[in-house]
Amino acid sequence: MADPRFFERAGPFTLGELAERCGTRLADPAMAACTVDDVATLDQAGPGQLTFLDNPKYTDAFAQTKAGACILHEKHAALAPAGVILLLSPKPYLSYARVAQLFYPAPKAVPGIHPTAVVEPTARLGDGVSVAAHAVIEAGAEIGAGSMVGAGTVIGRNVVLGKECRISAQVTLSHCLIGDRVLLHPGVRIGQDGFGFAPDPAGHVKVPQLGRVQIGSDCEIGANSTIDRGAGPDTVIGPGCWIDNLVQIGHNVTMGRGCIVIAQAGVAGSTQLGDFVVLAAQSGVAGHLKIGTGARVGAKSGVMTDIPAGESHFGIPAARVKEYFRQVATLRRLAQKKGADNE
Amino acid sequence: MADPRFFERAGPFTLGELAERCGTRLADPAMAACTVDDVATLDQAGPGQLTFLDNPKYTDAFAQTKAGACILHEKHAALAPAGVILLLSPKPYLSYARVAQLFYPAPKAVPGIHPTAVVEPTARLGDGVSVAAHAVIEAGAEIGAGSMVGAGTVIGRNVVLGKECRISAQVTLSHCLIGDRVLLHPGVRIGQDGFGFAPDPAGHVKVPQLGRVQIGSDCEIGANSTIDRGAGPDTVIGPGCWIDNLVQIGHNVTMGRGCIVIAQAGVAGSTQLGDFVVLAAQSGVAGHLKIGTGARVGAKSGVMTDIPAGESHFGIPAARVKEYFRQVATLRRLAQKKGADNE
Amino acid sequence: MADPRFFERAGPFTLGELAERCGTRLADPAMAACTVDDVATLDQAGPGQLTFLDNPKYTDAFAQTKAGACILHEKHAALAPAGVILLLSPKPYLSYARVAQLFYPAPKAVPGIHPTAVVEPTARLGDGVSVAAHAVIEAGAEIGAGSMVGAGTVIGRNVVLGKECRISAQVTLSHCLIGDRVLLHPGVRIGQDGFGFAPDPAGHVKVPQLGRVQIGSDCEIGANSTIDRGAGPDTVIGPGCWIDNLVQIGHNVTMGRGCIVIAQAGVAGSTQLGDFVVLAAQSGVAGHLKIGTGARVGAKSGVMTDIPAGESHFGIPAARVKEYFRQVATLRRLAQKKGADNE
Repeated sequence: MADPRFFERAGPFTLGELAERCGTRLADPAMAACTVDDVATLDQAGPGQLTFLDNPKYTDAFAQTKAGACILHEKHAALAPAGVILLLSPKPYLSYARVAQLFYPAPKAVPGIHPTAVVEPTARLGDGVSVAAHAVIEAGAEIGAGSMVGAGTVIGRNVVLGKECRISAQVTLSHCLIGDRVLLHPGVRIGQDGFGFAPDPAGHVKVPQLGRVQIGSDCEIGANSTIDRGAGPDTVIGPGCWIDNLVQIGHNVTMGRGCIVIAQAGVAGSTQLGDFVVLAAQSGVAGHLKIGTGARVGAKSGVMTDIPAGESHFGIPAARVKEYFRQVATLRRLAQKKGADNE
Repeated sequence: MADPRFFERAGPFTLGELAERCGTRLADPAMAACTVDDVATLDQAGPGQLTFLDNPKYTDAFAQTKAGACILHEKHAALAPAGVILLLSPKPYLSYARVAQLFYPAPKAVPGIHPTAVVEPTARLGDGVSVAAHAVIEAGAEIGAGSMVGAGTVIGRNVVLGKECRISAQVTLSHCLIGDRVLLHPGVRIGQDGFGFAPDPAGHVKVPQLGRVQIGSDCEIGANSTIDRGAGPDTVIGPGCWIDNLVQIGHNVTMGRGCIVIAQAGVAGSTQLGDFVVLAAQSGVAGHLKIGTGARVGAKSGVMTDIPAGESHFGIPAARVKEYFRQVATLRRLAQKKGADNE
Repeated sequence: MADPRFFERAGPFTLGELAERCGTRLADPAMAACTVDDVATLDQAGPGQLTFLDNPKYTDAFAQTKAGACILHEKHAALAPAGVILLLSPKPYLSYARVAQLFYPAPKAVPGIHPTAVVEPTARLGDGVSVAAHAVIEAGAEIGAGSMVGAGTVIGRNVVLGKECRISAQVTLSHCLIGDRVLLHPGVRIGQDGFGFAPDPAGHVKVPQLGRVQIGSDCEIGANSTIDRGAGPDTVIGPGCWIDNLVQIGHNVTMGRGCIVIAQAGVAGSTQLGDFVVLAAQSGVAGHLKIGTGARVGAKSGVMTDIPAGESHFGIPAARVKEYFRQVATLRRLAQKKGADNE
């Protein structure tokens, strides 16, 4: 059970309500009035709790679960232990995510401005906005209805923030336009100067960075990640992108919708990502490249060329995944041979 | 045009004045009295705006530009479309940077201390210093004339900051001495303990870190980058160094002047960089090495040996660039051969 | 000598006292009443100062030291210049660390709550706690006796912090339980949501992150590092772990005691580290792996498989250190051969 010091649980819910709201179907509709009061993993759930089976490698754990109910794909229904009520879903993990959100909804803004916050008179705050201690909202900034601004966060001059955003503590925003329902974790930096200068032995000369950052709705950006503003054009993060912690996005980068960028990855200036691109952890993409829709880049890879839509690339310099693993295998074989020759 | 919500434009300027102040020469001196009121890219500039041509691959765009005037190298002058006034420069991008700075000068400090800032009585602030909301300036710190201290930033005890520095929001400085005109982006951390301890199974024992950080004048340091103070000697960043976002500089590192360290790179303890060293994104340099003046390290490279002045190294472990690409080509060829053998 | 603007020195101490408190033995017990007033490196120490010899490559510097006293291993005693008083230790660097801590003890909390700090009435602060300017301590949080909370730091609702912790400026803590004597550097982020969602083309759906972070006693965590809370189970950092700057620790990761994670390394979700694991700089460990006690991962390596206890792995994908260097040597040889063939 989630630690009640940190998590507030809603519910209980009837299985009928959960099924309806979360895209599942009760295998036995007669069970619709049964209630569950929490979610839990297969091995920890007890009677009265709801669990899920997604990854087939957990079918053994499923066979032994004590859960009262379970979300799963129809094809696994036959494996269910007696007494477990089944909610069928074509995408069990997705349905579970929705159920878990019902039990543990995101914290809501407690409307009001903390007396220690500094809100300039020309800033415009929508209904129900919450501004925490020591936050700073500069002149002309707009905060959409229902948004939360965390402690110590600084919203720069004329920044526009949509509705129902959750901006954590100690975030800095400047020169940016942000959509609705965006979640920014602590220490996120958006809109500072990009890395632009004319190199010169007498002293590099700064090139003023005259663009902005646009962040689409429904994005989440991880702790201490940095997104520089454009040099002239804007830096653009499409709607529904998920960016993990300590990620760097350079100036003029554009991303389509639904991209996933995992921890410590980086994208250099002016590179364009299509929709649903995945950049795994600690990968890097050089500047001025095009990464097609649905392309995937492996962990720690270094991309130096365009990637066509739908391809997976790995390695440094990154190559098609099949090529990359052939290279790894080839080198391993040659090195073993050499090792053997020397013995 | 830069979004006027975020950028204040100066001008218009006569081409004569721009030419004089930015190291360019009017191809036709009779045009000196013409004015321009903004800068823009080749494809977006209109009459009355100034653009530039630097990279020869944009000569096609140049041939179609609608700009009123263009900074370019003499050798490209013949390609100019009719009616574009030409400003000739041996370094067009450098000249453009200077022009853009005239149109969009860096924000100036609005002198004064915000009432919510905490400034200890023994701190010394020069003329015209600006201290934003919730900033903290500890006992004995010195802030040079015309410097700006951003919201929530913490300047530690006895820290010395030069003139006309711009310290963004939520920076922390301790145990450091910083030159003039230094720009620190949000979340920069300077002067905290280096990573020093005596390993011991009974509990690693901290080695007190007794050095400082010295940052030369005219440096820029990117968002959320970290520079640890020396263990005994100082950590030293020479004048005019440009450090990008999320960079790590370990204790006792020394850098000459004009070094460029790109996003997510790291330099381990006690390594010495000469002048004008370039470390590309996500590269790393091991500790106790010497990287000679003008050396360059490729993106994602891992440097495990000294690099002589002027050399370019790539790869993990990093090798001379020619060797590295030969290794890449060799492995690719062998793997393809193996692939073919298997088919 | 450490800059007195930044460091307060204790002492002088008699060699007898230092020997007793720091695990060393005076070669000549008659010298116990002699005093030293500072520590310094071999080449910088003068009479009246104490130095140490650990790495045998500094025996030349040792032969010329002007130090009044030196901590070293018995086996090097014969190399001592005349007049240097010797403190013998089986682990000279460890003994030096203890001596240096006596001369330069960690700053103590100056008890009290700065008037600009916001401390909710239900927060519980132990004796002698120090809360700096603009810090925020939310409802129900517990701060153990003698702990320091830095300027602007935010301690979230119900967070538990042990005794004698030093939390630097601008740290954010939520959903976590932290032991005693923990040192967190500026910008550390602990307890925010892990990177958990069900991918979906219609919009990725967030999976509520219902675990916590537990940090053992005597840990140190570097500037701008991020530790996400568990998804259901907790993220656990064992006692005595040392984590450097800009490190990412994903949800559900567990670490034993005494692990060392160097700058810019990352550990993906649900991976388990035994005791005393070392992850070198910029390395990464994929998710759901087991890294055995005492295992070591080389700088920039990418670990994609479990590592048995005690092994050292290098490279991407990481292999046993011997295999890795054989691969490097093999590729280098083949590439040189190819280079020669082409000439």
